[in-house]
Amino acid sequence: MDERPTGYLSEAAKAALHEVSTATLTSQLLKRGFRNTFLGGLMPLRPDVRMVGYAFTLRYAPMREDLDLEVDYDNLKNVQRLAVEAIGDEDVLVIDARNEIHSASLGNILTTRIKMRGGTGLVTDGALRDANAFRAIDIATYTRGVHATTSSTKHHPVDMNVPIGCAGVLILPGDVMVGDADGVVAIPAKVAGEVALAALEQERLEAFVLGKIQAGASIVGVYPPDEKTRAEYEAGRKG
Amino acid sequence: MDERPTGYLSEAAKAALHEVSTATLTSQLLKRGFRNTFLGGLMPLRPDVRMVGYAFTLRYAPMREDLDLEVDYDNLKNVQRLAVEAIGDEDVLVIDARNEIHSASLGNILTTRIKMRGGTGLVTDGALRDANAFRAIDIATYTRGVHATTSSTKHHPVDMNVPIGCAGVLILPGDVMVGDADGVVAIPAKVAGEVALAALEQERLEAFVLGKIQAGASIVGVYPPDEKTRAEYEAGRKG
Amino acid sequence: MDERPTGYLSEAAKAALHEVSTATLTSQLLKRGFRNTFLGGLMPLRPDVRMVGYAFTLRYAPMREDLDLEVDYDNLKNVQRLAVEAIGDEDVLVIDARNEIHSASLGNILTTRIKMRGGTGLVTDGALRDANAFRAIDIATYTRGVHATTSSTKHHPVDMNVPIGCAGVLILPGDVMVGDADGVVAIPAKVAGEVALAALEQERLEAFVLGKIQAGASIVGVYPPDEKTRAEYEAGRKG
Amino acid sequence: MDERPTGYLSEAAKAALHEVSTATLTSQLLKRGFRNTFLGGLMPLRPDVRMVGYAFTLRYAPMREDLDLEVDYDNLKNVQRLAVEAIGDEDVLVIDARNEIHSASLGNILTTRIKMRGGTGLVTDGALRDANAFRAIDIATYTRGVHATTSSTKHHPVDMNVPIGCAGVLILPGDVMVGDADGVVAIPAKVAGEVALAALEQERLEAFVLGKIQAGASIVGVYPPDEKTRAEYEAGRKG
Amino acid sequence: MDERPTGYLSEAAKAALHEVSTATLTSQLLKRGFRNTFLGGLMPLRPDVRMVGYAFTLRYAPMREDLDLEVDYDNLKNVQRLAVEAIGDEDVLVIDARNEIHSASLGNILTTRIKMRGGTGLVTDGALRDANAFRAIDIATYTRGVHATTSSTKHHPVDMNVPIGCAGVLILPGDVMVGDADGVVAIPAKVAGEVALAALEQERLEAFVLGKIQAGASIVGVYPPDEKTRAEYEAGRKG
Amino acid sequence: MDERPTGYLSEAAKAALHEVSTATLTSQLLKRGFRNTFLGGLMPLRPDVRMVGYAFTLRYAPMREDLDLEVDYDNLKNVQRLAVEAIGDEDVLVIDARNEIHSASLGNILTTRIKMRGGTGLVTDGALRDANAFRAIDIATYTRGVHATTSSTKHHPVDMNVPIGCAGVLILPGDVMVGDADGVVAIPAKVAGEVALAALEQERLEAFVLGKIQAGASIVGVYPPDEKTRAEYEAGRKG
Repeated sequence: MDERPTGYLSEAAKAALHEVSTATLTSQLLKRGFRNTFLGGLMPLRPDVRMVGYAFTLRYAPMREDLDLEVDYDNLKNVQRLAVEAIGDEDVLVIDARNEIHSASLGNILTTRIKMRGGTGLVTDGALRDANAFRAIDIATYTRGVHATTSSTKHHPVDMNVPIGCAGVLILPGDVMVGDADGVVAIPAKVAGEVALAALEQERLEAFVLGKIQAGASIVGVYPPDEKTRAEYEAGRKG
Repeated sequence: MDERPTGYLSEAAKAALHEVSTATLTSQLLKRGFRNTFLGGLMPLRPDVRMVGYAFTLRYAPMREDLDLEVDYDNLKNVQRLAVEAIGDEDVLVIDARNEIHSASLGNILTTRIKMRGGTGLVTDGALRDANAFRAIDIATYTRGVHATTSSTKHHPVDMNVPIGCAGVLILPGDVMVGDADGVVAIPAKVAGEVALAALEQERLEAFVLGKIQAGASIVGVYPPDEKTRAEYEAGRKG
Repeated sequence: MDERPTGYLSEAAKAALHEVSTATLTSQLLKRGFRNTFLGGLMPLRPDVRMVGYAFTLRYAPMREDLDLEVDYDNLKNVQRLAVEAIGDEDVLVIDARNEIHSASLGNILTTRIKMRGGTGLVTDGALRDANAFRAIDIATYTRGVHATTSSTKHHPVDMNVPIGCAGVLILPGDVMVGDADGVVAIPAKVAGEVALAALEQERLEAFVLGKIQAGASIVGVYPPDEKTRAEYEAGRKG
Repeated sequence: MDERPTGYLSEAAKAALHEVSTATLTSQLLKRGFRNTFLGGLMPLRPDVRMVGYAFTLRYAPMREDLDLEVDYDNLKNVQRLAVEAIGDEDVLVIDARNEIHSASLGNILTTRIKMRGGTGLVTDGALRDANAFRAIDIATYTRGVHATTSSTKHHPVDMNVPIGCAGVLILPGDVMVGDADGVVAIPAKVAGEVALAALEQERLEAFVLGKIQAGASIVGVYPPDEKTRAEYEAGRKG
Repeated sequence: MDERPTGYLSEAAKAALHEVSTATLTSQLLKRGFRNTFLGGLMPLRPDVRMVGYAFTLRYAPMREDLDLEVDYDNLKNVQRLAVEAIGDEDVLVIDARNEIHSASLGNILTTRIKMRGGTGLVTDGALRDANAFRAIDIATYTRGVHATTSSTKHHPVDMNVPIGCAGVLILPGDVMVGDADGVVAIPAKVAGEVALAALEQERLEAFVLGKIQAGASIVGVYPPDEKTRAEYEAGRKG
Repeated sequence: MDERPTGYLSEAAKAALHEVSTATLTSQLLKRGFRNTFLGGLMPLRPDVRMVGYAFTLRYAPMREDLDLEVDYDNLKNVQRLAVEAIGDEDVLVIDARNEIHSASLGNILTTRIKMRGGTGLVTDGALRDANAFRAIDIATYTRGVHATTSSTKHHPVDMNVPIGCAGVLILPGDVMVGDADGVVAIPAKVAGEVALAALEQERLEAFVLGKIQAGASIVGVYPPDEKTRAEYEAGRKG
């Protein structure tokens, strides 16, 4: 089940991903033909914590009474529980909850365990419960909503580390997940390194452009920068 | 992948399922604790064709440009195509299209092939294109909408014969799928036989009740039938 | 509970309401300041049957397990059942189902009883089950959707002949309900008579206008009709 | 109208309800068969104020121009106003606003009056206006949205202390309403006492479990706790 | 205002567009990079009438009471009325109604005038009223819904023959609009001719493929056709 | 294009608009017959910054690949860019983004330029990206959502300073836009002055009323104030 790529980012790329915005990353992805990489409509429960990690996927289908409501969770059989105990360093648990926000997707105790195992994030297109408890765990967390009811009233965990949709975006196991205050972007593994570095470069140029706008420049010739502005920027970098 | 149960219904159960309404089937399922078995919001393209069969599931995730838009469909690798050529007698293809109605889920040529292979139905919670062409195929077809655009603009086929959600209901491979003019009900394999026969019995009683109402009876004592009305019904059956 | 006005329409007004369209009726209501009188998004199960009658309202709240799922319906206590047996001549049962379309609102046996008691229509902003059975009852029926599951999975009947909202419109007990192939309009009791007659007059004028347009006239001076066109119309009426 | 149960909670139960989370309460309710008790999609305007009280219900239907827009509010006839002046100690005003968020449900002056009369909360599945003013009133307040327009553009107050739906949940007058930062749960009166105490017990056990997870334990044997973990917990309590 | 291209299709292209399906047209557009050309969610009121024509656009903004509700329609100033009298041969009136389905977009009398002026279609992403009257006009008509209330309760006509969005698709004045039973596709003027002819060619090949599938062929090698199948098709065309 | 009225508010009216709530403004507009003036569902990114200004409108239609995705933005031709460089003192840029929240509407660099040109606000019924960057610009900003993807994936800028719909409300160029923590109200130019002053007067009376309620008064006779309460208020003003 788990042949997903992980740990493949260079230190430089990882450092870049801790710095650049998801907005810049989607622009770099768009340049490479990827239009649909941002997980729309999720909110951070910890907007102060930056997320960078490799996607560990978990898929939910709708609940059925004989499978979900009546059973005691069996940590050795229940897929949700197996996933939590399979999370590794730098992993982000990404849950396909079918945009269902009328129950929670996962609780704070399991999320604490994810944190203890080295996980760096939790992303669901469903809801979470006890949001205040989540705010006390030092891990980036993104959710579509808040709902106090436990997951088994709506969800049946099916499998892990298969391709899923989350918030309308394809997530392959091992994709790079990056989150900031806006939300979450999924970067296909094969372009993650170059996208990270290109995004950093773009942000440096844009910081220069913004400085000129703040100083009173018109956008004409400046944003997008023409050759003169680019030369000025390059000169400043070397200076 | 395909260890799903099929072919397990008795001839009597199958005959019953060709006769009873999905409304009655959901009531029998509710009596056994299953509240959520009807696939809401789907419309029949062939309301004149009754559907009874075993679920063959196909799961779609969101499209990504490098995987879906650019490739020629490879019938030996593309999961959608593999599924079509794996369909067997009395199978119903059930597609988890994530309720996405802004592209089609499958075309009429592939559906013709399903029909030729013995399939008895097609169910998607996405859309279909060229609805008139579907109306010309002699197979029960249920869809959430109509959209002329091909599936690869929105969907990436992932796997087949895994548990899926379709129109909000859990579908396990091998579940019995029954469709009438109202829509589709999914019956868990383990209760399908008894539910079929009980539904037939319920409908016979209700036909008797309806006859009394049509003749001017009040619902009191009649619907639900009290002991007297039941006795009258039983007498009539034997008579 | 039931002090609602009924039976107050003149024969002429009733005849007019059997003839004019809901479109014309909403226009006459708009002239009197009522903007929101059409129950949006409902579909007729019997588009061939015209509906005219007095609103008999029934209100549903959400189901709760201890009140709805487990009990046998008691025709002497259950509000839904009491309502059915209280329906009278020319009544239209209007159900506030909170736009909930994931279960039915009422079954075909109860609706047959409504028909037998002299009811002239059934309107719900929820769903109905066994739509084909409804098509066999000779009574105008309007619903937001079709869902095979019985009402008690979603609804708890609360009271009857109180003011309700149905499909976003206020319905007071005794309001005149008129339905055609477009859908349903609710006419406040106090203006129902004059609105009916004014609508008939409007339609006669519009038929004359349409004839001119069909004969090749421009809309200028004709639609809306200027004095010359109106004089021509008046002359034709007398002629 | 007002025969609703109030004041029936023991001091111990009330104290428990001031301490436990809505998440825990929904779990205790689920154990007793109640799946749908959390009012989804509401946000607290005062997440810092805990809500515990007895439901005082108020029902709105859609506005009609002749009833709502033109009249001066009459405090002796308008049901909204009558409700405000009927609120008592420990009451929570719960408004069925039909999930309509395009106008407010109630203003800050009336809510101040509710507070002065001893009310402990305001819950609406519609919107509120002047959210900042609400933040200045020392009363727990939950709303689906914020809209500056006054209630009469959308709502016609109909009756009070009848069963209503609020945010998809049945609320009977006198049910216990509890709110925290996640949102609001409605507890049926007949189980409120036992649920409160059981929830407190559950939270104590979960705090112990969480401590072990935070110390590095696997979830296996710990969450859910096996007999050994439970024994450890019990020993700690007595110690 | 009206410099839009019209009348530019060759007879061959026009003939092709009267024959091919919107499904095939979207596929040809997708091959040219256009992913979003089908107007989703519209239904034909005249599924029996094929639509081919040039887009004449009309844009609505939200109504405001001082501009819309109180005035008599002035055929010499009201943009809706000016548009109707400006429609020419082979024009299709396409209305941007902001997907608002709680009032009609246009009435049957104005649409009759459009027909008389040579118009070949009416497309709105809002609603229409008096659907039966529309069914009596011999013109292709597409709408998102049916609502009996007149347009001025929701819409303020603003301008015509400007770029608009309709059902989520960009419509430039003069684009080719084609409609069949599935719905409507918008073809950019600059590719309309080649798309029409290529679509016809595609359908001929697919008819051949479908024949083979109907005769029992597997999809492998046939759909998509490999070189052998293509050669067979070509031979058949010449034969 | 730009004959819109600006700069017409008196200093007293402007001062009033900086003080009164949008709630009070909608009430004053309702008294003058305007029911639909509040832009529902928008959230302030800078709730601490009050917005008062004149509407400068910008209209987006859906993107098309040949017009939007491939081109470099040309500041001399692209309508979005032309709009930014045409903004003047006290202008509020109001974008009709068709409620589309799956891409941003405008970036922080362009918004910085708007601020530098004297603009006092930005309002979109679409989304914005890099919300944190917006929070650093000292300008009132309202958006329906947050989405990191750039505008050209969904939007094609069409024209500026035409009547638009924004969040369901008609905005004419030059209308007064006022924003507070609740959201945004659009005041028609011709009534803006009188509405501003009447709103201030209303708030003074309501502050007096609130004081009495806070002191323990019933709402009867006080809210709405009867003649005695009004006299008391007037006496206090003069005292």
